[in-house]
Amino acid sequence: MISIGIIGGTGYTGSELLRLLANHPEADVQLITSQQNPGQKIGDLYPGLNRYRHLELKAPPEGQLPKLDVFFSCLPPGKAMSLAKGLKSTSSKIIDLSADFRFKSLEAFQQWYETPHTAPELNLEAVFGLPEIFREEIKDAWLVANPGCYPTSILLPLIPLFKAKLPIAAPIICDSKSGVSGAGRNPGLKGQFVEVNENFSAYKVGHVHRHVGEIEEKLNLFSSQTVHITFTPHLLPLNRGILSTIYVNFTKPVSAAEIHQILSAQYADEPFVRLLKIGEFPQLAPVRNSNRCDIGLNCFHDNQQLIIVSCIDNLVKGASGQAIQNMNILFNLPETLGLPLEGGIS
Amino acid sequence: MISIGIIGGTGYTGSELLRLLANHPEADVQLITSQQNPGQKIGDLYPGLNRYRHLELKAPPEGQLPKLDVFFSCLPPGKAMSLAKGLKSTSSKIIDLSADFRFKSLEAFQQWYETPHTAPELNLEAVFGLPEIFREEIKDAWLVANPGCYPTSILLPLIPLFKAKLPIAAPIICDSKSGVSGAGRNPGLKGQFVEVNENFSAYKVGHVHRHVGEIEEKLNLFSSQTVHITFTPHLLPLNRGILSTIYVNFTKPVSAAEIHQILSAQYADEPFVRLLKIGEFPQLAPVRNSNRCDIGLNCFHDNQQLIIVSCIDNLVKGASGQAIQNMNILFNLPETLGLPLEGGIS
Amino acid sequence: MISIGIIGGTGYTGSELLRLLANHPEADVQLITSQQNPGQKIGDLYPGLNRYRHLELKAPPEGQLPKLDVFFSCLPPGKAMSLAKGLKSTSSKIIDLSADFRFKSLEAFQQWYETPHTAPELNLEAVFGLPEIFREEIKDAWLVANPGCYPTSILLPLIPLFKAKLPIAAPIICDSKSGVSGAGRNPGLKGQFVEVNENFSAYKVGHVHRHVGEIEEKLNLFSSQTVHITFTPHLLPLNRGILSTIYVNFTKPVSAAEIHQILSAQYADEPFVRLLKIGEFPQLAPVRNSNRCDIGLNCFHDNQQLIIVSCIDNLVKGASGQAIQNMNILFNLPETLGLPLEGGIS
Amino acid sequence: MISIGIIGGTGYTGSELLRLLANHPEADVQLITSQQNPGQKIGDLYPGLNRYRHLELKAPPEGQLPKLDVFFSCLPPGKAMSLAKGLKSTSSKIIDLSADFRFKSLEAFQQWYETPHTAPELNLEAVFGLPEIFREEIKDAWLVANPGCYPTSILLPLIPLFKAKLPIAAPIICDSKSGVSGAGRNPGLKGQFVEVNENFSAYKVGHVHRHVGEIEEKLNLFSSQTVHITFTPHLLPLNRGILSTIYVNFTKPVSAAEIHQILSAQYADEPFVRLLKIGEFPQLAPVRNSNRCDIGLNCFHDNQQLIIVSCIDNLVKGASGQAIQNMNILFNLPETLGLPLEGGIS
Repeated sequence: MISIGIIGGTGYTGSELLRLLANHPEADVQLITSQQNPGQKIGDLYPGLNRYRHLELKAPPEGQLPKLDVFFSCLPPGKAMSLAKGLKSTSSKIIDLSADFRFKSLEAFQQWYETPHTAPELNLEAVFGLPEIFREEIKDAWLVANPGCYPTSILLPLIPLFKAKLPIAAPIICDSKSGVSGAGRNPGLKGQFVEVNENFSAYKVGHVHRHVGEIEEKLNLFSSQTVHITFTPHLLPLNRGILSTIYVNFTKPVSAAEIHQILSAQYADEPFVRLLKIGEFPQLAPVRNSNRCDIGLNCFHDNQQLIIVSCIDNLVKGASGQAIQNMNILFNLPETLGLPLEGGIS
Repeated sequence: MISIGIIGGTGYTGSELLRLLANHPEADVQLITSQQNPGQKIGDLYPGLNRYRHLELKAPPEGQLPKLDVFFSCLPPGKAMSLAKGLKSTSSKIIDLSADFRFKSLEAFQQWYETPHTAPELNLEAVFGLPEIFREEIKDAWLVANPGCYPTSILLPLIPLFKAKLPIAAPIICDSKSGVSGAGRNPGLKGQFVEVNENFSAYKVGHVHRHVGEIEEKLNLFSSQTVHITFTPHLLPLNRGILSTIYVNFTKPVSAAEIHQILSAQYADEPFVRLLKIGEFPQLAPVRNSNRCDIGLNCFHDNQQLIIVSCIDNLVKGASGQAIQNMNILFNLPETLGLPLEGGIS
Repeated sequence: MISIGIIGGTGYTGSELLRLLANHPEADVQLITSQQNPGQKIGDLYPGLNRYRHLELKAPPEGQLPKLDVFFSCLPPGKAMSLAKGLKSTSSKIIDLSADFRFKSLEAFQQWYETPHTAPELNLEAVFGLPEIFREEIKDAWLVANPGCYPTSILLPLIPLFKAKLPIAAPIICDSKSGVSGAGRNPGLKGQFVEVNENFSAYKVGHVHRHVGEIEEKLNLFSSQTVHITFTPHLLPLNRGILSTIYVNFTKPVSAAEIHQILSAQYADEPFVRLLKIGEFPQLAPVRNSNRCDIGLNCFHDNQQLIIVSCIDNLVKGASGQAIQNMNILFNLPETLGLPLEGGIS
Repeated sequence: MISIGIIGGTGYTGSELLRLLANHPEADVQLITSQQNPGQKIGDLYPGLNRYRHLELKAPPEGQLPKLDVFFSCLPPGKAMSLAKGLKSTSSKIIDLSADFRFKSLEAFQQWYETPHTAPELNLEAVFGLPEIFREEIKDAWLVANPGCYPTSILLPLIPLFKAKLPIAAPIICDSKSGVSGAGRNPGLKGQFVEVNENFSAYKVGHVHRHVGEIEEKLNLFSSQTVHITFTPHLLPLNRGILSTIYVNFTKPVSAAEIHQILSAQYADEPFVRLLKIGEFPQLAPVRNSNRCDIGLNCFHDNQQLIIVSCIDNLVKGASGQAIQNMNILFNLPETLGLPLEGGIS
């Protein structure tokens, strides 16, 4: 059994970890911390939870966390850096669901998150936890930076195209739509039911959302030329899920068959990526509650333009499920162990 | 492994069986039939399915079904009677999700379903598959009548009160609210998104819904006086879940503590029934996707009136999950095997 | 033109007043106050508004409001009492959307709102603004207490039955379901989209919601015996609308035809009340955005039990629309002037 | 008063016409036809309707429609052509909400709608009813082709840019999202609540939706070079509204200020177009139930790329509201008469 601690566990990613780990045969969650609700049982906040509902929330014992096999950090940006410093000496492993260790470039981190990085030496040891692309690095890591939700939906279909050196013209347009749980559980007017329901809107339009930096850095790892994207996130009136519609222009024609072949070569054996036939496009509901990423594509305008649609559940493959996938890799377990492959049927 | 056939498997209960059985370690679904879509793969109808997505739908081979360990029948009312006749000779077990074998009284069946019962001898052998109440009978059965969704939410809290001979005054008022999946997958105007969304309505008000007959018959098994209910189902603009608000008048005062004690004695060890503290009431989302029934209660008006709120997922505890619970009992497996206990957290 | 001020105008009832008054040919909104957002334009908070979008929010000028023909007070409970004191000298009329002047009994007010009434002498002059019942009193009033949303949906169908001295047995059960806008615009966890969407729940079950006091007092005006109700409000995952399912037991049989006749006699000429045929029940969507109350009914159990379903839009007939209806009466205008009669078609 | 007939009036556009015309002081709807429900009252199909609820649906009296001032045709594609032939002799005016008369090019019509045009001579007399662009032509027309919903949301922001001869690079990407009422009221699996709710999907991706032809033809009227678009419609889980996110690449930089100036010059005096400040983007809810089109924009990537977001209510400005706007023009009435300017506040 893997002993597990969840730091900052009362948001949606923390509770989703508990919901998923309840069905993981090797998981043993022993600690869950919360700054706001110490002393409460997690089941009082989330009555949907069952196995772990009697677990009591602990005030974060700063600097004196016990040694456990692995900690999931669900802290807001800027907090996991100091947590990781404290934990390193316990030789616990860390899977951080914030952005603190996602960037190779500390300048880029500082630019996008508007705070200096306070643990640059640890950042050198961190690995970007997108298993389908960085599996080998993850195996040996102790500190995994779990990718952002939007980036997961965009990087999975795009990285293989850069690896294949397709003639991609800048900028790639990523028109993404996310359910409301992506914004977290903090009460605010913008997340109120009446403001979101029967509404739809774009926000942080163009090149300003923090995930732009994460996406561009990771794409640039595989590109000879600097990659720029246009990124327009939208807020969907539903709980879970991200659908990204991605438009790639080519400087010379590329057929859908060629692109399908490239993605198929990358993902044919991946249990959590499903590539649809050319011209078929995935929907959100079938990936809901699953750790899958479904991808569809086709080319238009004489193969000068590629359209990709990719779908994930932002709380599963986009956060907590992918974090458990990383845990499975870190502990040499079957990568699918305890993770949901079935999606929504209604 | 248990070899399984699903008859009429392309509706919501059939696909939910496949979604749940995909995670059942002893299940091996070998056959799925469909009158409307033979030859298609079930995954083309329900892309959310993963493990069984390549299973091909077979035309129903009337009268010549193979021997399998168990068949789940998801046929509409009136069809499972002839199916059961044909299957008896194969010594397969049957779990029928329709109403065909739910009634002891064939007159009541005919009255409520407006069709004569054509297999009265088999009906004598059928057992009502509400495990928390009829577990012992189910163990030895070969033909299980899986309860209706509304009845499950109403019988679980009420039967123990009748067993305890509380002084209940007629009629009991059951004001129930159900998500849209309860109406099945058949396209029709009433189920169209625009007609249901941002709308709410009562239907079959008072004493006319078919489930009235099922509820009254089962309550009468435990009552010395004839029980009448008032039943008003309502259609909620959401996919899954039933919440029943139940009003019971007493002819002399009964305290909430006494009622809580009665229900606790019945359900304390039941993994799928959660009794809340007096004065706490359950919500729908926490039981979504789980096989649980959550129950809350309190008394009012000088203990002359009891209010119970009970919640289930109509497709899980109200249909396919309970059917698998019955399968586990029939095959002497742990009753929770492969069944979800965690509910929705968002 | 009627000069109008709206006090505390940035919640849903205030903005709904502006939305509706924009189409009122005699309305001239000159002042709108807000404690939280002084200096902002109301259109920045509610971009859906058009005619009044450039109106600037003023800090509430305590005790020195100008004379206008009428003020709508959208302040929270306990605040309109002092406002009314200050306004009386200006001889402006007041339509108060809070509960401050709804109770004849100051004891009842204090019991349900847990605060003493500080303007008992003004309370004597206040009129309960349910026009279909109290129209004559409203005509001569200067201070109108606009009814609560739930009470409107319950009192309209029930008061005529008490006036007709039907043999009603206590308690009447009011199982009400409301959209989320009824809870106001204050951000909080309970109103967050993810918490409400795909969820449904009862709250303040039985006899504890503040509207119980308002409903019971008004019913008792027409009853020889003390009336008690059971009231269970539920939260619907939709923006607007209340549907109340009301169960009335009789001590001796009363036919649906008789009840229909009683309600028809009361409401046949009322433009905002629509009585459906016996056995037909209204839905929420058709009253959305309208000032109508739609009512359906039938009797069951040998005419021993009556079931009524009534529907309103909680922001229109349940709040701002009814307030404008009261304004029309106060100023001797056609009662339907500027008020919406058409409801939702999708 | 204008005497009005509605042909094929039982879909969402027909009922929306009735809802809106109920508040139009010059409208007198005298006839409404329906092939499927002759003899029924429209209020039985749409209980939300009030003023016209007692109007009886007539079977379409082929070839013998009475003379009325104007007919709105809500027939499916291919049906209005023969209707118009029959009506011409009555000298009634026609506003057709289908695509039958939207194309100047009969070849394009045949290509996109896969049916030959059977009234080419009438097509020559038809005017494209986008008032903000073609107002002068509409004034003198007798046959108005009401624009499609998606095209309205895309043409209004784009046409002025072509008129201004901005250096636009092909193709323009139109990523549009529509509520479900846009698909009409015909029952089908794809429109079922459970299939749409908590789901989101792209359909007819790239260059295949029929509205592509309409959009490209109208843009080409104002372009020296052939315009191509990429068009990806998506289905939103809500009733009403279209939000289009439009990406325009320039061959040389153009500032947001310049574009804002161009649109402002076109629309500053238009009551139904609201241009937001640079960098502000509209949301769906504020245009719901209104005849407005709200537009926001900004430039990115060194002014090489423009992003526009435009919002309409697909049933109002995208269909029935715009049709009434055209009626007002045809009959020389104030263009805003009877049309809603206020949008949703919740």
